[in-house]
Amino acid sequence: PSWEILERESIRRLERVFTFKNFKQALAFTNRVGELAEEAGHHPALLTEWGKVTVIWWTHAIKGLHKNDFVMAAKTDEAARTDEAAK
Amino acid sequence: PSWEILERESIRRLERVFTFKNFKQALAFTNRVGELAEEAGHHPALLTEWGKVTVIWWTHAIKGLHKNDFVMAAKTDEAARTDEAAK
Repeated sequence: PSWEILERESIRRLERVFTFKNFKQALAFTNRVGELAEEAGHHPALLTEWGKVTVIWWTHAIKGLHKNDFVMAAKTDEAARTDEAAK
Repeated sequence: PSWEILERESIRRLERVFTFKNFKQALAFTNRVGELAEEAGHHPALLTEWGKVTVIWWTHAIKGLHKNDFVMAAKTDEAARTDEAAK
């Protein structure tokens, strides 16, 4: 599973699901992506559930996708690669 | 705003939005609810966005709502009451 461009509420968004073996590992990844977001000053929607996190990037100001969203998606992937728990 | 019972994907769920003044405070609340979930062994879906967290409770095993979901909703409210940032 990789990133998909999905339209939700008329806004195109980049979306990817990362899976984990429990809730705790999923929440730890949510926090890791949250740190990336704070560093970049650009914030996603993060849906944390038992064993998975759905990461959704888009740019509020333009109600759609901007280059920066793709940069943040790549950073999210890098965070997942260095997170042994992420699949 | 309080809890609403919403049907999503044919499953009735308890859902409430809590608002915050930024992403960091929202993520802190997500973690607080995550702790409650781990303590109870019952886990919600937590949608963390800039300035808000949507908390969704339901019981996977019965694909619907059980008394325990209402107990967890009350615990979530209690966490919000003791979180000065939550509205």
